[in-house]
Amino acid sequence: MFNAMQKKHSIGILGATGMVGQRFIQLLEDHPWFEITWLAASDRSSGKLYADAAKWRLDTPCPERIAKMKISAADPAGAPAIIFAALDSDIALDLEPRFAAAGCAVVSNSSAFRMAPSVPLVIPEVNAEHLHLIDQQSWRKSSGGYIVTNPNCSAIGLVLALKPIEQRFGIEQIFVTTMQAVSGAGYPGVPSMDILGNVVPYIKSEEEKMEAETLKLLGSLTGEKIAPLAARMSASCNRVPVEDGHTESVSIKLTKPATHTEILAAWAEFKPLAGKNLPMAPEQPVIWTPEADRPQPRLDKNRARGMAVTTGRLRPCGLLDWKFTVLSHNTVRGAAGAAILNAELLHSLDKLP
Amino acid sequence: MFNAMQKKHSIGILGATGMVGQRFIQLLEDHPWFEITWLAASDRSSGKLYADAAKWRLDTPCPERIAKMKISAADPAGAPAIIFAALDSDIALDLEPRFAAAGCAVVSNSSAFRMAPSVPLVIPEVNAEHLHLIDQQSWRKSSGGYIVTNPNCSAIGLVLALKPIEQRFGIEQIFVTTMQAVSGAGYPGVPSMDILGNVVPYIKSEEEKMEAETLKLLGSLTGEKIAPLAARMSASCNRVPVEDGHTESVSIKLTKPATHTEILAAWAEFKPLAGKNLPMAPEQPVIWTPEADRPQPRLDKNRARGMAVTTGRLRPCGLLDWKFTVLSHNTVRGAAGAAILNAELLHSLDKLP
Amino acid sequence: MFNAMQKKHSIGILGATGMVGQRFIQLLEDHPWFEITWLAASDRSSGKLYADAAKWRLDTPCPERIAKMKISAADPAGAPAIIFAALDSDIALDLEPRFAAAGCAVVSNSSAFRMAPSVPLVIPEVNAEHLHLIDQQSWRKSSGGYIVTNPNCSAIGLVLALKPIEQRFGIEQIFVTTMQAVSGAGYPGVPSMDILGNVVPYIKSEEEKMEAETLKLLGSLTGEKIAPLAARMSASCNRVPVEDGHTESVSIKLTKPATHTEILAAWAEFKPLAGKNLPMAPEQPVIWTPEADRPQPRLDKNRARGMAVTTGRLRPCGLLDWKFTVLSHNTVRGAAGAAILNAELLHSLDKLP
Amino acid sequence: MFNAMQKKHSIGILGATGMVGQRFIQLLEDHPWFEITWLAASDRSSGKLYADAAKWRLDTPCPERIAKMKISAADPAGAPAIIFAALDSDIALDLEPRFAAAGCAVVSNSSAFRMAPSVPLVIPEVNAEHLHLIDQQSWRKSSGGYIVTNPNCSAIGLVLALKPIEQRFGIEQIFVTTMQAVSGAGYPGVPSMDILGNVVPYIKSEEEKMEAETLKLLGSLTGEKIAPLAARMSASCNRVPVEDGHTESVSIKLTKPATHTEILAAWAEFKPLAGKNLPMAPEQPVIWTPEADRPQPRLDKNRARGMAVTTGRLRPCGLLDWKFTVLSHNTVRGAAGAAILNAELLHSLDKLP
Repeated sequence: MFNAMQKKHSIGILGATGMVGQRFIQLLEDHPWFEITWLAASDRSSGKLYADAAKWRLDTPCPERIAKMKISAADPAGAPAIIFAALDSDIALDLEPRFAAAGCAVVSNSSAFRMAPSVPLVIPEVNAEHLHLIDQQSWRKSSGGYIVTNPNCSAIGLVLALKPIEQRFGIEQIFVTTMQAVSGAGYPGVPSMDILGNVVPYIKSEEEKMEAETLKLLGSLTGEKIAPLAARMSASCNRVPVEDGHTESVSIKLTKPATHTEILAAWAEFKPLAGKNLPMAPEQPVIWTPEADRPQPRLDKNRARGMAVTTGRLRPCGLLDWKFTVLSHNTVRGAAGAAILNAELLHSLDKLP
Repeated sequence: MFNAMQKKHSIGILGATGMVGQRFIQLLEDHPWFEITWLAASDRSSGKLYADAAKWRLDTPCPERIAKMKISAADPAGAPAIIFAALDSDIALDLEPRFAAAGCAVVSNSSAFRMAPSVPLVIPEVNAEHLHLIDQQSWRKSSGGYIVTNPNCSAIGLVLALKPIEQRFGIEQIFVTTMQAVSGAGYPGVPSMDILGNVVPYIKSEEEKMEAETLKLLGSLTGEKIAPLAARMSASCNRVPVEDGHTESVSIKLTKPATHTEILAAWAEFKPLAGKNLPMAPEQPVIWTPEADRPQPRLDKNRARGMAVTTGRLRPCGLLDWKFTVLSHNTVRGAAGAAILNAELLHSLDKLP
Repeated sequence: MFNAMQKKHSIGILGATGMVGQRFIQLLEDHPWFEITWLAASDRSSGKLYADAAKWRLDTPCPERIAKMKISAADPAGAPAIIFAALDSDIALDLEPRFAAAGCAVVSNSSAFRMAPSVPLVIPEVNAEHLHLIDQQSWRKSSGGYIVTNPNCSAIGLVLALKPIEQRFGIEQIFVTTMQAVSGAGYPGVPSMDILGNVVPYIKSEEEKMEAETLKLLGSLTGEKIAPLAARMSASCNRVPVEDGHTESVSIKLTKPATHTEILAAWAEFKPLAGKNLPMAPEQPVIWTPEADRPQPRLDKNRARGMAVTTGRLRPCGLLDWKFTVLSHNTVRGAAGAAILNAELLHSLDKLP
Repeated sequence: MFNAMQKKHSIGILGATGMVGQRFIQLLEDHPWFEITWLAASDRSSGKLYADAAKWRLDTPCPERIAKMKISAADPAGAPAIIFAALDSDIALDLEPRFAAAGCAVVSNSSAFRMAPSVPLVIPEVNAEHLHLIDQQSWRKSSGGYIVTNPNCSAIGLVLALKPIEQRFGIEQIFVTTMQAVSGAGYPGVPSMDILGNVVPYIKSEEEKMEAETLKLLGSLTGEKIAPLAARMSASCNRVPVEDGHTESVSIKLTKPATHTEILAAWAEFKPLAGKNLPMAPEQPVIWTPEADRPQPRLDKNRARGMAVTTGRLRPCGLLDWKFTVLSHNTVRGAAGAAILNAELLHSLDKLP
């Protein structure tokens, strides 16, 4: 679809110095379609070299080309037409519409607009058709710009594991308890005094977001609206001393009965993006781990470069039908990688400016 | 009840060198009623001084008197009449009956006999009346000996939090996901390579034990038998990188509706041992933490010297009625302290030999 | 020295909401001589109840009396005559002189004035005689007020271990590499993303402070000045994922040769405060741990309620004479406990206002 | 040197199921010269499939081809001619000579023969010429077999950082304090109860090995013997709660004075393997990190696929001349990767059977 002769899309990053911004930079290095040409962060960083403004926290070095780029003001003037946004919600509320109004495709990891009726909340393997919502956006009509969002890092692993089951057997009830990594809180984020040898049984607004987003993602597009999945759900969110990788204990009640074998088959055969050749797309989005004590964040978070989720421990539930564990890399599949995959999908649909 | 003139009960410890054995020693130092006079461990340790046989892992020094005691063979001959047992299940299966047959009161933390029909599984605040079961034991009839057990470390915190609610409102469904400390696995226990920066979503047999024990503990004694609580339950057990303190996310469905205020009142007013003057008994067995992000193992595990459990985050559940977090110190309230409190209860009932 | 009839000294705390402020509150609960009557913190907290202003991070509950106290403005007007200060250095530079000028005894844990020529930097067991310096302070002469400081948390353990050796054998060279706990950086302090499963080989200004303070502490008062110990020293400071307790690998070159036995004896016999009955003073300030793998922060930091330092692994050094490991509780012996002990010493010398 | 037509060397692994054995398997997947054809482990594992015998602990999946291989008895009969050994020392003492006597090139990570006079202890960038020692080995003369070893994981990072300095300026004194990762102790290795939130200031025999090996590695081959470097050295070894990556605080006294710039230049220009095209060799063996707080294990251990060491914080030492921090990946550069690089060097010298 893309050949070596073609020019890559120019990409701008809003919130380039944060944890998710750094992941964008790491994952976009050598990307075949996208090339970062513009970085923006807070006013404090504006005008500085990236290397001076960002405290790089990833375990691969910051690419030299990026390190030497100057950070621009967070203003659409001068920005490229495709923007990856990794902003705090309150800042996103203000900035993202300004970029969309200026004609940009804003591919956002922020939570600000995820639940807005006309904003698609998308996981390409799960609900690509929700992208039609962008035509409902006023910006789209005026300037051509739009906002597309990906879900919260805790919802994305869950939904990828649920979708193959939901589409075959239906899901009526969902119980989930999360054990979430500290990188999900950004940097500086969680103080070490709070989490070393500890569990914090609370993450602000996380349970509400996780419940609402899960049902929207599994919902169906009817006309110009998303009807959320008509399931009942309860999420309990905890922070644990893990660097990367959210682990979740899940129980579900199905509409139609399913056997252990049938659920494994649903996961194994779930390859909705097969043949689309999206560079970030994992060949197998949901990987089953047969060992009794898996998945584990330290061992499994990097499967398919962090873009696959792993499931394990499928067993009958004493209250609902089945329970299992799911793991996903929260800053790759759960954040920057999610947005990039959304942009790849938009490109493949010829919807990028 | 006990005055300074009276001689203390002589106590023996089976499995004295392990993690729970060490907690017995720590908690019994200066105990007003009990005095350790006999220590036994594996054959390998027999005959050695305690200081040489045990790798002491607690953050208070091993009492000097204990350090200098010689470890005895694990045989009833020469053992005192009250035995605290902290044995692996397979060893307990063999040893505990031998001590009971020899006339000992075996106050056991082992799992081997917890679910045996004639063996009481007891938390003094919850089901003291189950102790009547000991009269069903054949050893009791022949030698006077018996076995009394306390629950698994993951069940005990849950049940203490549930009992006050159950007795006022009834409980029909129980959902629990645990995040358990490594000390629960003993020493050497969990390899550091398995748990540093990691979650292990599996603890062998733990979910089965937790479900069965919870329902037996909340069950009722009818004639000579325990009828387990007629509730449905599902437990998911995880290991997290925490030294001490099991954190649990719990959801429950009640028989009769209860308000937030009524549940807090049930916990606050739950003082079934008030007036009994049991030395290890916490004045307030269930302590409510009003902060949004509590309880936490690092901050709350030592309330009432580790004998109280803390609850927090009571909020409506999207599937059942209420959800909350409960925390308990797994090697104090969940193991050695539990057994000692059982022995104190037996003493107060004049059932110790 | 103090009897039950006597009124306790009223104590104020500057910086009451921080990590060290919280330790002051914890350690002063039930103190026989001192009673907290005044709390001050940043302007942001002024006027609030302590419970609302402070995020309590210790594993014993905040005393109820303190929780309900109102936080005062950080101004000498209305403050008691004895002030414990736990301030950031730049704030201490401004505030501590104002309290001293107003006649207060400022017993400070801040670093601002530690190296000032007329300010005593004191560990009661090590250099109590340096307290004479307060008479050089201009405040002392005008209002009666003065500033007394205790050392950095990394220096205090080292110096307590060195002093008994230095006074018997002389020390000419000191090599130390620290592995410091995160609580030393306060709260929020070290981000968890920086330290989970990691070592940070740098703590700002720590090596400079540690070297200068160590030599001043071991120095001698000659007339009106401190002559620092004429030794050469090199400190390398690292942060490790430990909550409390600084571990240090130390090597020393002595003036006179000393045997293993002689050094152990120097530590064992080091009881310079014996008979003074200072409530916080450990009976044995330097405790030797004979096990091959001790001291360890998790197991040894709380010896003598956190006021003793533990030493271990004394062995010949390939470069200097001897090497060993020393451990101290950085927020007790290394901060709040150090200041309280200084105040107790001042009280015993009748120097408190 | 190797072209696609050539057959790869068949490789056997002794100790294939342990932590280092797993790293051998991970690093040799897709190796251009070497192909694993034979795996051996303890008698207990012999005859099993690798997937059943090994508890795989790395964060990339075990290669499928390896998972399905059957584990052979640890006997030279049937083994290929090149053996990578990752054995406990006492087992290596027995097994490695048997394989060498049978004609195998034993490229060993075990400590058993590192200090044997006729056994080369080699880091290719440091002392490749020591390989001539193999001609002193009796096995070499009889069967053609030999043993070549790589150093302890704590020595290898240090020596790589020291060599460029030593060869330009000479080194007379070496001080090092290590903070070592738990993976260095293998699996199950360090119990989590020992290291969570803790430092263990002792690793059995580590200081002795580190001192002896460092001086042998930096020594010179004179005739048929290694004269160790005539420097004095002191090592203090600590275990910290880090999964992978040993951090070391180092101080050195030089023979000739060197400036900060000259030392950085020595590191930057140290490329002794340039042009040899050894597949595992890092282009830049010693990478300087200019940031004030680096290197850090979490961020820097994987530089050059874990084969480069990183240095940082070069600053004057109050006792010797310079001090700095060095970091190396202990199971890659410090173990399996070291042995593979040794084998690559042997291949390039045409010394592999």
